[in-house]
Amino acid sequence: MKKLIPLALLACAATLSLPAAAQFAKPEDAIKYREAVMTVQGFHLGRLFAMAQGKIPFDAKVAASDADVLADVTRLAWPAFLPGTDKGKTRAKPDIWTEQAKFKEAADKMQAEVAKLDAAAKTGNLDNIKAAVGPVGQSCKACHDNFRKD
Amino acid sequence: MKKLIPLALLACAATLSLPAAAQFAKPEDAIKYREAVMTVQGFHLGRLFAMAQGKIPFDAKVAASDADVLADVTRLAWPAFLPGTDKGKTRAKPDIWTEQAKFKEAADKMQAEVAKLDAAAKTGNLDNIKAAVGPVGQSCKACHDNFRKD
Repeated sequence: MKKLIPLALLACAATLSLPAAAQFAKPEDAIKYREAVMTVQGFHLGRLFAMAQGKIPFDAKVAASDADVLADVTRLAWPAFLPGTDKGKTRAKPDIWTEQAKFKEAADKMQAEVAKLDAAAKTGNLDNIKAAVGPVGQSCKACHDNFRKD
Repeated sequence: MKKLIPLALLACAATLSLPAAAQFAKPEDAIKYREAVMTVQGFHLGRLFAMAQGKIPFDAKVAASDADVLADVTRLAWPAFLPGTDKGKTRAKPDIWTEQAKFKEAADKMQAEVAKLDAAAKTGNLDNIKAAVGPVGQSCKACHDNFRKD
């Protein structure tokens, strides 16, 4: 019986210490999830860029909604870059896990720029959106350049 | 010169009548987008189910966040079921477009159940979540049964 308690505690601790974000059944689920998030991001940011560049008519309501969705979903991708999800069908560079501080900095930078874009889009002013959309695109690119394979 | 004005007006009207949601460059972009949204939905609903079924420890904060994300993203899929996006690599049944009222009803049903789950999760009470998560799952299933190919 003496053995059972530590074992039970260990099992419990293992369960409890598992981050909630880590509830992907398989590494490929985490990969699929974060790629899905980025697909959604790409569409809404793409539409904001198209409006900023005059490729489609500016619609303040749509722009505000796009920026809102972007703010909602951008925060979702990061927790899916879990240790062990660098293998398989992914373009994620190992640097994500070997340079965690740099990766976090890039993630924080993007979050901050998306928050600015969200605030800009809420003003309903196209010039504000034009000024804010570039830095978001640059923050995507910076992260891809450093942490994504070609 | 007389001809130019109506033509210009027509071009303008055509641009303006294009729904903002329809800004997918290609039908496959709409397909990829809506599948991405459902991947995100599936993960967060899956984690809520896992908590409701006791498969993972209940974490009120994570559950509230999951339901929140679910409420944020569920509304995104519907506008991507655009006419002309029934071809190619999709399991979407033609019924989506031939039975639009029925499809909209199924979508509205899911939105309503997700809103209830979001409210339930905000209470931080697992029993409330258990009661609300089933109907969301059923609304997914009902739509898949009727509108998704096997």
